[in-house]
Amino acid sequence: MSLVVVGTMAFDAIETPFGKVNQIVGGSATYVAYAASNFVKPIQQVSIVGYDFPKEEMEELTKRGVQLDGVEIVADKKSFFWSGRYHMDMNSRDTLVTDLNVLLDFNPELPQAYRDAEFVMLGNLHPAIQKKVIEQMSVRPKLIAMDTMNFWMESAMPELEEVLKMVDVLMINDSEARQLSGQFSLVKAAKAIMEMGPKFLVIKKGEHGALLFHQDNVFFAPALPLEDVFDPTGAGDTFAGGFMGHIARTKDISFENMKTGIIVGSALASFCVEKFGPDRLREISQQDIHTRIEQFVNLVNFDIELV
Amino acid sequence: MSLVVVGTMAFDAIETPFGKVNQIVGGSATYVAYAASNFVKPIQQVSIVGYDFPKEEMEELTKRGVQLDGVEIVADKKSFFWSGRYHMDMNSRDTLVTDLNVLLDFNPELPQAYRDAEFVMLGNLHPAIQKKVIEQMSVRPKLIAMDTMNFWMESAMPELEEVLKMVDVLMINDSEARQLSGQFSLVKAAKAIMEMGPKFLVIKKGEHGALLFHQDNVFFAPALPLEDVFDPTGAGDTFAGGFMGHIARTKDISFENMKTGIIVGSALASFCVEKFGPDRLREISQQDIHTRIEQFVNLVNFDIELV
Repeated sequence: MSLVVVGTMAFDAIETPFGKVNQIVGGSATYVAYAASNFVKPIQQVSIVGYDFPKEEMEELTKRGVQLDGVEIVADKKSFFWSGRYHMDMNSRDTLVTDLNVLLDFNPELPQAYRDAEFVMLGNLHPAIQKKVIEQMSVRPKLIAMDTMNFWMESAMPELEEVLKMVDVLMINDSEARQLSGQFSLVKAAKAIMEMGPKFLVIKKGEHGALLFHQDNVFFAPALPLEDVFDPTGAGDTFAGGFMGHIARTKDISFENMKTGIIVGSALASFCVEKFGPDRLREISQQDIHTRIEQFVNLVNFDIELV
Repeated sequence: MSLVVVGTMAFDAIETPFGKVNQIVGGSATYVAYAASNFVKPIQQVSIVGYDFPKEEMEELTKRGVQLDGVEIVADKKSFFWSGRYHMDMNSRDTLVTDLNVLLDFNPELPQAYRDAEFVMLGNLHPAIQKKVIEQMSVRPKLIAMDTMNFWMESAMPELEEVLKMVDVLMINDSEARQLSGQFSLVKAAKAIMEMGPKFLVIKKGEHGALLFHQDNVFFAPALPLEDVFDPTGAGDTFAGGFMGHIARTKDISFENMKTGIIVGSALASFCVEKFGPDRLREISQQDIHTRIEQFVNLVNFDIELV
């Protein structure tokens, strides 16, 4: 029940109303791996880093059951670097710096041992790279999920349309769903996007929760109301990691089980925002996750007896 | 099991991206009464209107079990008039005109038959008027809920603080909760506001749902994802009417039952936005309400079996 995770492993510099870090480990594949490794082993990681990426981070991931054979290390270049500043509402941010560095050379070659994985999570990358990964799989995986962003809708729409036809689950945020579909209503946007390929669509709304669409069905999970949101960086990727970790563990790709995956993903994301970067994700235990999921059950559970 | 409803009965002119009406019946007490009358009779209405308020509207409300003895009709003045224009996102609007008209004279005198009601819903009005209504009750009602707005926080904070000490449930939107508490985190805002008096706090987030707080408990209900939101005017009051209608019908003021009230309120609000003004609320049947509540159950219901 291995899960292939493709995405960035990087450094971030983050400023929020609560603090500032100048260099912390980040990247979509890092967050996905931390979250998913609570549920499934091995994670088969596909990424690229520079000479500067910390060995201790690699060791920590290995300990968690993350295979790094698919992570290329470039000896003479720096890792991908992103820097951003969050506004007071924590829902919006300005990108200050994007240094692609090694990402310019990213042309993933999947190790043979990865090629029959049943589950694949494609983090936000150029859609041509996402497509290349799918084409290297020797058997069609049971479930392929992908993330993307507005940048590719503007700069690589034909390639994005191609890869959308090849995946099962698309995970994007609300403004990206509106941009991709040209529809303001998220219900209409979901219909339009599912016609582009993915049978399942997850629309992430940050502190306002997430929606799962499939055919005429819709499911909603809130974000846990927290006293403090310390740093939202990586919350979306952590959500994806929790979701795919749950799906890969249960091997059940029904809509019903994806609903549970959405709750698991929301629970993991609620930890992620409690500290800078993936710091909180390193600490949490299975018991912490169970307790958090119980909080979600209590948050939305109600009895109703109609008139 | 009567429910006293205090608030405005008015005319609105509304412009949304989908259309425009120059004069349609509105007002907080109108929406509350339409929603609550699906669940409880009589509604004992307290309001003030001018000579121009339509007789047919009064007749329609009477037919629904709304007593109008507490609605003062001023023969030589016009009804309260509000005009607004919604932005594309439907979550924000500009007020174009506010003609107080009869509202300047509003000094409600409760009919004797109203004074032992078990349930009271105080729509958004000057807090001194809300207080005056509470003081006219001959027995302390089982539950008093109130709405308010940022305007009173800025212009009548001492009076608002007084009335907050007298009520059980406060219903406000997220920006109002932040303003009232001085806290950005809604969890922290809720704690601070409950220390000001109300044991229960409902924070309405429009299309992003609603939160119910009580002591250390929190419950969340989403808004139903709709293909089209036609006109959000009155959705908050309709929510309050559905909530209080359910509470008054069941006479159960536990946190558990309030959770159900939040779902009922959300269901009613989801109808309200489908047409201009209260038009849709006039049409819906008990069966429509049941079906809509089932949609909420499906929207948030999930099974979970932990690792």
